Amino acid sequence: MLDFYFDFASPYSYVGAMRVEALCTNAGLPMRWRPFLLGPIFTAQQGLEDSPFNAQPVKGQYMWRDVERLCAKHGYPFKKPDSFPQRSILAARAACVALEKPWCGDFIRGVFMANFGLGKDIASPSTLGDVLSSLGVDPATILPQAEQDPVKRLLRAFTDEAIALGVFGAPNAVIGKELFFGQDRLEDAIGWARAHQSTKLH
Amino acid sequence: MLDFYFDFASPYSYVGAMRVEALCTNAGLPMRWRPFLLGPIFTAQQGLEDSPFNAQPVKGQYMWRDVERLCAKHGYPFKKPDSFPQRSILAARAACVALEKPWCGDFIRGVFMANFGLGKDIASPSTLGDVLSSLGVDPATILPQAEQDPVKRLLRAFTDEAIALGVFGAPNAVIGKELFFGQDRLEDAIGWARAHQSTKLH
Repeated sequence: MLDFYFDFASPYSYVGAMRVEALCTNAGLPMRWRPFLLGPIFTAQQGLEDSPFNAQPVKGQYMWRDVERLCAKHGYPFKKPDSFPQRSILAARAACVALEKPWCGDFIRGVFMANFGLGKDIASPSTLGDVLSSLGVDPATILPQAEQDPVKRLLRAFTDEAIALGVFGAPNAVIGKELFFGQDRLEDAIGWARAHQSTKLH
Repeated sequence: MLDFYFDFASPYSYVGAMRVEALCTNAGLPMRWRPFLLGPIFTAQQGLEDSPFNAQPVKGQYMWRDVERLCAKHGYPFKKPDSFPQRSILAARAACVALEKPWCGDFIRGVFMANFGLGKDIASPSTLGDVLSSLGVDPATILPQAEQDPVKRLLRAFTDEAIALGVFGAPNAVIGKELFFGQDRLEDAIGWARAHQSTKLH
């Protein structure tokens, strides 16, 4: 089992979210989507109220170029958002509602593509509604649930889980308690699962 | 041409330095070793007088586990140093002296292995001398040159080059002006050189 911890505001989470499900399927490894919020973690660990990529502009400038190259390599659309980071809490709660649905992965990839591929405002319910509609899902059956207390508690629980695992950024692949940070470690995480979870998988 | 910018105090530079020359040789791509100092860059960009991995302990704890896993994957020895970061300026100057020698790559890998594979103090001339001696090189012909002004100026020039390229960490592979940060981007950098420098190579 691979748990993929991501924040919709995180550019490298976009690349990872586009890649992870196909990689796991090809490896025969089950996966779970784990939305969480990076903001409280950046505040607690670094005293930041902004993205570290804005706080360190030299690193931020490189990151946008690197993400652009990675998207070109994998064939994903890329458009640097006018506003960064976007407020991802509503999208993350909607992903929590979607977790058990067959269209969950498509919804998550669709929201990431709206943010980093199309430059749309993912804090807006209408953007999220457009993604749902494109999947044949009625937004009115999903978005109101995203504001309910059990869903808010679930997102907080995922963020608490991430903190307990030692998370400091996104995305992350987690195999048991073993943390792999960065979309560049997805293949290593899958290799780790193969080497260490074979007795549980078979 | 691939320029490999590294700091002997940087754990991910160890992994990258062990990998880069063989990768370039296999790709038929010439490479140049470019020692530089991260310390002044961390101070200028982040106001730090210490490694960011110490300033952010959650990230630092992950980094050591990640480097341990990477070394296991590639078959490199790993021992977390008692003291981190080590003072790397003398080793970097010695690498500047070594640049035109046929044993340059072996010296650089030997110093990294002393730091992160064997837990030795690379700020000590005797550690550097042991690495040189193991290569059949008399330390007395090399180490005194490391303290001479032209060598000090060369190391400062490499650090200034790194800053001009947008460097914020290490290691880095540079193809022309295109910056690839992290040992995980070495293959992408080589691919970039193949795609963009073919007219110059052939």
